[in-house]
Amino acid sequence: MRTAMSEMIQAAQDALTTSIEQLDGRGRFHEDHWTRPEGGGGRSRVLQDGAVFEKAGCGVSMVHGELSKEAVAQMGGGQGLPADFPRTFFAAGISLVFHPRNPHAPTMHANVRYFERGDGSVPGSWWFGGGADLTPSYLYDEDVIHFHRTLQQACDRADPSFYGRYKKWCDDYFFIKHREERRGVGGIFFDDLRDRTPTQLLSFVKDMIHSVIPAYVPIIEKRGNQAYSDLEKNWQQIRRGRYVEFNLVYDRGTVFGLKTGGRTESILMSLPLTARWEYDHHPAVGSPEAALLAVLHTPRDWLCSETPRAS
Amino acid sequence: MRTAMSEMIQAAQDALTTSIEQLDGRGRFHEDHWTRPEGGGGRSRVLQDGAVFEKAGCGVSMVHGELSKEAVAQMGGGQGLPADFPRTFFAAGISLVFHPRNPHAPTMHANVRYFERGDGSVPGSWWFGGGADLTPSYLYDEDVIHFHRTLQQACDRADPSFYGRYKKWCDDYFFIKHREERRGVGGIFFDDLRDRTPTQLLSFVKDMIHSVIPAYVPIIEKRGNQAYSDLEKNWQQIRRGRYVEFNLVYDRGTVFGLKTGGRTESILMSLPLTARWEYDHHPAVGSPEAALLAVLHTPRDWLCSETPRAS
Repeated sequence: MRTAMSEMIQAAQDALTTSIEQLDGRGRFHEDHWTRPEGGGGRSRVLQDGAVFEKAGCGVSMVHGELSKEAVAQMGGGQGLPADFPRTFFAAGISLVFHPRNPHAPTMHANVRYFERGDGSVPGSWWFGGGADLTPSYLYDEDVIHFHRTLQQACDRADPSFYGRYKKWCDDYFFIKHREERRGVGGIFFDDLRDRTPTQLLSFVKDMIHSVIPAYVPIIEKRGNQAYSDLEKNWQQIRRGRYVEFNLVYDRGTVFGLKTGGRTESILMSLPLTARWEYDHHPAVGSPEAALLAVLHTPRDWLCSETPRAS
Repeated sequence: MRTAMSEMIQAAQDALTTSIEQLDGRGRFHEDHWTRPEGGGGRSRVLQDGAVFEKAGCGVSMVHGELSKEAVAQMGGGQGLPADFPRTFFAAGISLVFHPRNPHAPTMHANVRYFERGDGSVPGSWWFGGGADLTPSYLYDEDVIHFHRTLQQACDRADPSFYGRYKKWCDDYFFIKHREERRGVGGIFFDDLRDRTPTQLLSFVKDMIHSVIPAYVPIIEKRGNQAYSDLEKNWQQIRRGRYVEFNLVYDRGTVFGLKTGGRTESILMSLPLTARWEYDHHPAVGSPEAALLAVLHTPRDWLCSETPRAS
């Protein structure tokens, strides 16, 4: 499984960065190999100042070593393991964040990860996690529905119960508590998955990570060159500030990584190129900016109005 | 003491915002009164898009109520109090952050605060905290020395042992662990001060907060209109990103405030108007940008080369 997951995420990184380069037309990903003194390493790819993308990062990592007791206590998965279970671990994952220049084109984040404690042979000592979510500055219902529907289809191929549960989990996870608003319009989020065979779950996360291309690329093709005003660019910059707030204050992977000595540049690759904080900013009542905020306060069930699915 | 501290910080806010408006020439502070449902409130003043200052915030708050058990456990002061000590509290403070437009002009932050548990009559149930620190994008030794010397003089008027201890505490506190660099070139920082009478300590923090005007204004008068290049502005924006990283990941007041339901806009008033994150940015060897980084990695004893002080 270590090898299968490692090969899968590297192939996905190739497919994703190729798609984004084609979409951008001008920008190129710069690649960075890094190694971790305690074991393993990764391959980071970043495109900056492209024609369509302001900053796009996509990294894979395959690391191993021994966890501290504090790290074990703070982890999302493996909580059922006995206290004296070996703290050796293996972790492999891919993570990506694409920030387009145009305020009408949404940011997308996705990741999948596999974690193993000991040699992974004991039941409950390994698990998968991941998800994909969309962060627009302006709300286009059709874009959000397309994004959710594409992810729903990937979920349904594995289990028709997945989408409903992981959509809710996503809305709950990407919550900026001090703003009482979500970071974006969601997608799916899951962690600690181990109630199927590793092969079945690998197949699901592979399908999911590849589905972000058809979920996202058509939206950028439509919005990437739309005309925009200074006011719209300003609002995008304020939303980027909120993105930074979520990632630095609440995102488990980011905060855990920064505080436990992860590779800073790979962790903070998710941050936008630029962001803005205006004191006590409130969009005008009835404005498109206010319409976005309403959805961030109260998430919608994006697919409920469609014809019932055969499942 | 509650009344004396509340009056002191409001007068200091008036003095500070008047100085900054005069210095800016164009920008005006906008005032915001707010109340806290659980008790008390504050007065926030923000100047945005001035001639000299991109964003300058100065707020006072006088709040009271009852702390949660978690809040008591996480607080910097009052740790010696018995577990069943009343969790009622009173807190009053002033906090300010001034972000100039010009990359050669440093950001300054300062604050003083007074905290009381119960009615404050029990020894150890009240304490003072505060400090002032400078965050330049470019290093001018003479500016840093002037800033430190002015604070040292305020410290010395209270106790000649203060400056040395609080200078070190400041270097230790404003540390961005994941970057292994300090946020800026320091100043002073102190917390949990209660080894003198309340009157003596009030007098010290009053002297300190007023001394930030002579410590900072002459630097801005000198650097506020200095010519600068796009590269210098870009470096300032990257440093502002680091400022955001420190405040959102490590600053106790910020993280504690955001997670326990403080007033978000007052807490995040400290953030710069704009910030920037470039992947794996490194200044050129021998550049002025690298010279700043060297000092952020290894803080200097700014006043050691001066003639010995009479103390």
